[in-house]
Amino acid sequence: MNAHEFRRRGKEMVDYVADYLEGVEGRQVYPDVEPGYLRPLLPTAAPQEPETFEDIIKDVEKIIMPGVTHWHSPYFFAYFPTASSYPAMLADMLCGAIGCIGFSWAASPACTELETVMMDWLGKMLRLPAVFLAGEAGEGGGVIQGSASEATLVALLAARTKVTRCLQAASPGLTQATIMEKLVAYASDQAHSSVERAGLIGGVKLKAIPSDGKFAMRASALQEALERDKAEGLIPFFVVATLGTTSCCSFDNLLEVGPICREEDVWLHVDAAYAGSAFICPEFRHLLNGVEYADSFNFNPHKWLLVNFDCSAMWVKKRTDLTGAFKLDPVYLKHSHQDSGLITDYRHWQLPLGRRFRSLKMWFVFRMYGVKGLQAYIRKHVQLSHEFEALVHQDPRFEICAEVTLGLVCFRLKGSNKLNEALLERINSAKKIHLVPCHLRDQFVLRFAICSRTVESAHVQLAWEHIRGLATDLLGAQKEEKAGKPCWGGQISSTI
Amino acid sequence: MNAHEFRRRGKEMVDYVADYLEGVEGRQVYPDVEPGYLRPLLPTAAPQEPETFEDIIKDVEKIIMPGVTHWHSPYFFAYFPTASSYPAMLADMLCGAIGCIGFSWAASPACTELETVMMDWLGKMLRLPAVFLAGEAGEGGGVIQGSASEATLVALLAARTKVTRCLQAASPGLTQATIMEKLVAYASDQAHSSVERAGLIGGVKLKAIPSDGKFAMRASALQEALERDKAEGLIPFFVVATLGTTSCCSFDNLLEVGPICREEDVWLHVDAAYAGSAFICPEFRHLLNGVEYADSFNFNPHKWLLVNFDCSAMWVKKRTDLTGAFKLDPVYLKHSHQDSGLITDYRHWQLPLGRRFRSLKMWFVFRMYGVKGLQAYIRKHVQLSHEFEALVHQDPRFEICAEVTLGLVCFRLKGSNKLNEALLERINSAKKIHLVPCHLRDQFVLRFAICSRTVESAHVQLAWEHIRGLATDLLGAQKEEKAGKPCWGGQISSTI
Repeated sequence: MNAHEFRRRGKEMVDYVADYLEGVEGRQVYPDVEPGYLRPLLPTAAPQEPETFEDIIKDVEKIIMPGVTHWHSPYFFAYFPTASSYPAMLADMLCGAIGCIGFSWAASPACTELETVMMDWLGKMLRLPAVFLAGEAGEGGGVIQGSASEATLVALLAARTKVTRCLQAASPGLTQATIMEKLVAYASDQAHSSVERAGLIGGVKLKAIPSDGKFAMRASALQEALERDKAEGLIPFFVVATLGTTSCCSFDNLLEVGPICREEDVWLHVDAAYAGSAFICPEFRHLLNGVEYADSFNFNPHKWLLVNFDCSAMWVKKRTDLTGAFKLDPVYLKHSHQDSGLITDYRHWQLPLGRRFRSLKMWFVFRMYGVKGLQAYIRKHVQLSHEFEALVHQDPRFEICAEVTLGLVCFRLKGSNKLNEALLERINSAKKIHLVPCHLRDQFVLRFAICSRTVESAHVQLAWEHIRGLATDLLGAQKEEKAGKPCWGGQISSTI
Repeated sequence: MNAHEFRRRGKEMVDYVADYLEGVEGRQVYPDVEPGYLRPLLPTAAPQEPETFEDIIKDVEKIIMPGVTHWHSPYFFAYFPTASSYPAMLADMLCGAIGCIGFSWAASPACTELETVMMDWLGKMLRLPAVFLAGEAGEGGGVIQGSASEATLVALLAARTKVTRCLQAASPGLTQATIMEKLVAYASDQAHSSVERAGLIGGVKLKAIPSDGKFAMRASALQEALERDKAEGLIPFFVVATLGTTSCCSFDNLLEVGPICREEDVWLHVDAAYAGSAFICPEFRHLLNGVEYADSFNFNPHKWLLVNFDCSAMWVKKRTDLTGAFKLDPVYLKHSHQDSGLITDYRHWQLPLGRRFRSLKMWFVFRMYGVKGLQAYIRKHVQLSHEFEALVHQDPRFEICAEVTLGLVCFRLKGSNKLNEALLERINSAKKIHLVPCHLRDQFVLRFAICSRTVESAHVQLAWEHIRGLATDLLGAQKEEKAGKPCWGGQISSTI
């Protein structure tokens, strides 16, 4: 395919993309396919001769789309949102064309420098303490990671290196293994599974701190764990505080946890993967209070700030903490400016070497929405979740299971877990909307997350009517079953 | 921006992209900017009100492009190629529109299943042993990682988990730390820096095996290291063999190294990041012989197979080795099919949780080029590197420093490292072409890598004439200096 054909096919693809997104509401949000559906529809090997674009785009509709879960349908309320906006898509096209690999300043100066400045812009939007910004001579700064998982792992590894060097400086005979055996990281029992995984990868213990009645990590529980472990000769070195947990969007108490970490000289990483985007609104900024105690902070603009995946924003107070943990400099990556102190080689800030020009997406989105446009978007989602919350409150058969702060509502039918599992099963089998569950303590809970850029009040209202109707059916069937009456053609349902 | 405006702006962007790539030859390959150039050109904070697309696209040309290193210029011969093709860009547009996050089968079945099938297609193109393919009931399979660095790290972590569990099963009292202290990984002294980094992250020793005169890891050196370490009570557990090293595209001897790893029950990871793409050509497939001994194999279609970054292809013989190392299953990620044994949840195969629908790029590229088109592309690059090699041979002032097998030529002026550093400095200051150096043993060497999709014989010829001219100037200046004559307006150059 040459440039001439790309001009034609690219424009067709632009229309396909616009058609898809304009029409996604009309597609069934969750697919009908069964595992293994795709393989029989494809040849067993790549073709020897070239095929045409027409053939492929026909297959997209015929083979791919029937197996797609439509994350951008306004009836998608599962997981958390993943960002989708037209400005980000335009930027991604440009990113693909420039196609530079920005591992060092010299590999493409614009790629590195725009990232540094965009991370400063974003930090200012959140009113992050200035110490996290790169500015012109700061010691901190921001970097785009691929995901919050990577940010947590990078922070844990940097903390591990820092504490190891510090202990070895004090006692030169200590081996890394002796130290690692004693290192302990901490996170709330509500923290994301990626935190546990970072501990596994880093080869250190991770202990879960029991959260309080609001699913928040508090001072007392953390302090107790630290004291117990220190008394046993262990070395606390790393705490992850979550702002906006995945299960129920609860917030660890940073203003309590922060000072403890400072006092104990333990690295504090703040993970606000989902909730972080909301902090650009002054009315939600208080949820970030205490971030001044953190060594590193991360959230995902690719979740809720309209910057398409991947774009996970991470800041550190001391960039040398990261670069010190990872720096390796082979000759083929050296360049004449790198020792000037003025430049940033982002390969020392992350796990992979390669990286795309992702800051273009931030630049396009921030400029084409403006801060006010982004704030309006966040506020609309929060308003919709409160609307759903109010609907749930109006139906006495249901209960709200956790405080609704941002765009997530955790709710359930009053009754057993089995009952709620059955309700979810009915919801997701009907495929009119899509939800996922969580456990809060021993309760099986349904999560209703406001996700799509185009979701409106009408969709939320429809979703709720649908859920209520299925609940009525379910409770009716259950009553009949209890009364010993055969239901559904004489078969007694065994699922309830 | 709504769909209507996206249709218009998207088409303008398609033209911008085509214009850029058609005209990239006319842009200076390496930018003139100095570190810090960008910040003064941008506002200090994001705008409050939305700006227009026109404003932004004007700034792209005014602010971004002057700071871009043009990786797709036919005068770019630095690092290794990074892929760029129109079919991949079209697929990326579609990927952005679907915008699913494919961490589990249920999160978007098509995203997972197309990846599995495309990795089988690609494995067949390379004639990988069937044990690496997923097929319909295989124990192995492929996954798209973000980079070769991540693939190496994932392999190392899987190997670490496997050996740890095995040793703990035999001696239940052993702690992980006791084991980790004794674990040793190995790679050639020519291996990529990401291998060393994987060892650092994984908290295990990594030992460099001295390569032979052709920069290849051989049996004797590896065996010697293993014996010495075992005698000291250490536990060898992981070997990385590189096919196509970054410095000079040398090949570790897999047919020697493989049997040793099998005998010693050590995990063998084969890293063919750059060279792997060439193995789709029958005449280069022999370079992959011995892969049958590997536990995991990886190469980057995003380097040399026209699939834009990121797309790093990794296969394992036993998928349970990976999933066993990483599996954590919170309720919000569970789905009804996951225990069926039929499905793949790729989140257990990689470091991050989130992942884009990257297999679309493979599907578009494989179909629109066909295997023959991809083979022709590889062959053209190899032919151009041999053309450059022949030119170097014709000039007795120069020497070739390593065997030219694929698309990389390592060469230098006969003489001191300083002389060659000065030559590279002149080349990169002139900015007509762009190269990076490497060290081979104690020699400072220039790397000439065939990179761009559009590079032709004429560009290679021009590049060589340019290098020769600069060498003539340099040697002339050096002669004058030696003769004590003032050069360049009376100043004695201090750089030589």
